[in-house]
Amino acid sequence: MTETQHDVVAIGNALVDVIADVDEAFIASQGLNRGAMTLIDAERAEGLYAAMPPAIEMSGGSAGNTIAGVASLGGRAAYIGKVADDQLGRVFRHDIRAAGVTYEVPPANGGAPSGRCLIVVTPDAQRTMNTFLGAGVDLGPEDVDAALIAGAQVTYLEGYLWDPPRAKEAFLKATRVAHEAGRKVSLTLSDPFCVDRYREEFLDLVEHHVDILFANEIEIMSLYQVADFDAALQRVRGHCEVAALTRSEKGSVIVAGDEVHVVDAAPVSRVVDTTGAGDMYAAGFLYGYTQELELARCGRIGAIAAAEVISHYGARPEVSLRSLI
Amino acid sequence: MTETQHDVVAIGNALVDVIADVDEAFIASQGLNRGAMTLIDAERAEGLYAAMPPAIEMSGGSAGNTIAGVASLGGRAAYIGKVADDQLGRVFRHDIRAAGVTYEVPPANGGAPSGRCLIVVTPDAQRTMNTFLGAGVDLGPEDVDAALIAGAQVTYLEGYLWDPPRAKEAFLKATRVAHEAGRKVSLTLSDPFCVDRYREEFLDLVEHHVDILFANEIEIMSLYQVADFDAALQRVRGHCEVAALTRSEKGSVIVAGDEVHVVDAAPVSRVVDTTGAGDMYAAGFLYGYTQELELARCGRIGAIAAAEVISHYGARPEVSLRSLI
Repeated sequence: MTETQHDVVAIGNALVDVIADVDEAFIASQGLNRGAMTLIDAERAEGLYAAMPPAIEMSGGSAGNTIAGVASLGGRAAYIGKVADDQLGRVFRHDIRAAGVTYEVPPANGGAPSGRCLIVVTPDAQRTMNTFLGAGVDLGPEDVDAALIAGAQVTYLEGYLWDPPRAKEAFLKATRVAHEAGRKVSLTLSDPFCVDRYREEFLDLVEHHVDILFANEIEIMSLYQVADFDAALQRVRGHCEVAALTRSEKGSVIVAGDEVHVVDAAPVSRVVDTTGAGDMYAAGFLYGYTQELELARCGRIGAIAAAEVISHYGARPEVSLRSLI
Repeated sequence: MTETQHDVVAIGNALVDVIADVDEAFIASQGLNRGAMTLIDAERAEGLYAAMPPAIEMSGGSAGNTIAGVASLGGRAAYIGKVADDQLGRVFRHDIRAAGVTYEVPPANGGAPSGRCLIVVTPDAQRTMNTFLGAGVDLGPEDVDAALIAGAQVTYLEGYLWDPPRAKEAFLKATRVAHEAGRKVSLTLSDPFCVDRYREEFLDLVEHHVDILFANEIEIMSLYQVADFDAALQRVRGHCEVAALTRSEKGSVIVAGDEVHVVDAAPVSRVVDTTGAGDMYAAGFLYGYTQELELARCGRIGAIAAAEVISHYGARPEVSLRSLI
C-alpha cells in the first residue's frame, strides 16, 4: 500500500453553530425535539433564531468537529464539506484551517447561504440541535477528491450526510475510492432520528461497507430495533471490523470480532454543554486507531477528548487535546 | 420634564467580536498593541484573521456591551449604531434585541461589511483589540432619532465614536438634543490611545458637555497628561457632575463635587478574559444612576457587573445581571 498523506479525511455537513442557553419552557414553547438533531428550513431557522436569546457563533458540523479534534491531537487531517461564499462560510473555513485541517473544497456559487445549527442548551447541559443545511445541500461527488481519499488511512463519514440529496453520492464515491485504495471507511450513525430516517440504508452500509462504526447506545439499538444494549452489541459485532459504542457517563464499549473492551468515561468537573461529545470521542478513537494503538487505548483517548469538549460551550476543543493525552 | 421611554440610550460603533486565545509570541509576531484597541483596515483585518487560531464570534462594541448590560439589569435600554445588511450584521441585530434593547437603526446600504473586532486573549486574560470599523463608518447624525434621545434619562456615548468621520456629528447632535430635553449626557473615554488621538476635543467635551464621565485610571491620567491618579481626580472633579474612575482590581473611585466614594472591586474566582470589564462597570453604574440609587451603590453594581463579564469569554453578560444584585 502506498504511503498516506493524511490519517483521517472527514466528510460532513459544514455548519456554523449558533449556541444559546435556554430554559425548559423554551423547548416546549418552540416545540423542539429535545436532545435530538432536527432539520429545519430557512423560514423556520429565521423564526427560531428570532426567538433565541443572545448567542455565540462557533464553527461546528459533526464531522468538522471530529476532524478538528483529530488535528488537535496531532493527526494529519483533511475535511470535505460545503459552505457558501459568505461571512459564516469564511468563519467555517478559517476555523477548520486554523485548527490545522486541510480544507480545499470551493464554496458553493450562489444558492443558499452557509448552513448553521441553532443549538439551545438547557440547564441539564443537554443540547437540542436545529439544522438549516443551507449551502451544505450542494455537496456532491464532484467535491470528493479521489486522491485525497485514497491518500488517507481512514475516511470518516457522518450519517447526517444522508439528509442532503447529493451528499449520499459523495459518501458512496468516497467509500468506493477508499476501499479500492485499501483504506478504511468509518461511519457515525449521528443521531437516533437520523437512523430512523434511513434504517434500511444504514443497515446495508454497516453490514457491507463500514469498517469502523461509531454509535451511541440509542442509535445502535434503534438501528437493530432492539430494546437492550447487549442485544445490539451482539448484532453489530459480526458486521464491522470495529464498532465503538458510546454510553455517555457509562463510558464506551468497543467490539472487534471476539474482542470486547469496556472503557470508562473520563472525569469531568462540570458538564456545561454536551454538544460534540460523540464527535470528540470519534476524534480520539480515530487518532489512536491511525497511530495503531490498542483499541482500549483508542477508546480512552476518545473519552478524554469527549470530556474536554463537554466542559465548555461549543463542540470543538478549547485546548490542545494533544496536551491532555 | 416629560416622562422617559428609556433609562439609557447608547451610541457606539456596532461590532461583532471575533475572540481567540493566543500566546505572547502571537502578539509579538503580529506586532499588536498589547492591551489596547487599534484600528485596522480591511486588508489588515483579513491578514490578522488568517493568522488567528480558531475563534468564537459574539456581539460586542463597547457601548453595545454596556447597553446589553443595562438591559440585563432590568433597565429600559436603546442603542444606536450601524451594521451592514449581512450575516454578521444580523448577528449583531439579533443579539442586542434578544438582550431586550430597542434597536431600530436601519442597516447601511452597500459599502463595507459589518464591523468586527479581532480580539486576542493572552494567558494573563488581557485582551488586545483590533477593530475593523466596516459599516460603522456610515453612522451619522441622520441615525440619531431625536425623540429617542429626548426620551431617555441618559445618553451614553463611547469615545471610540471620534474615530469614524461622521459619528462625531451624530455624537454632537445627540448631546445637544439630550441637553435641550433636560437629560444627562455620559461619555466613556474608551481607551488611552483614543484619548491620545483626540485629547483636545475630549477635554472640551469633559469640561463643557459631559455630565457623567467614565474612564479608567490610565485614560484619565492621559486626558490631563498627569503622572498620578490623584492629580487626575482633582482635575476632573470640577468639570463633570459625576466621574466614575475605574482601577481594575483596585476598584473604582466616584467623584461628584465634594463627594468622593471609593468602591472595592467585586471578587472573581478566575479572570478569564478582561474584555468588557469597563463596559459592564458603566452598565451597572448607569443602571443604578437611572434608578436614583446612591453613587456608592451605583459603583458597587458596576463592580458586580464587571466581575461577571471577566469570569468568561466575551464582553456581554452570560447570566442575568439582575439576578446578581
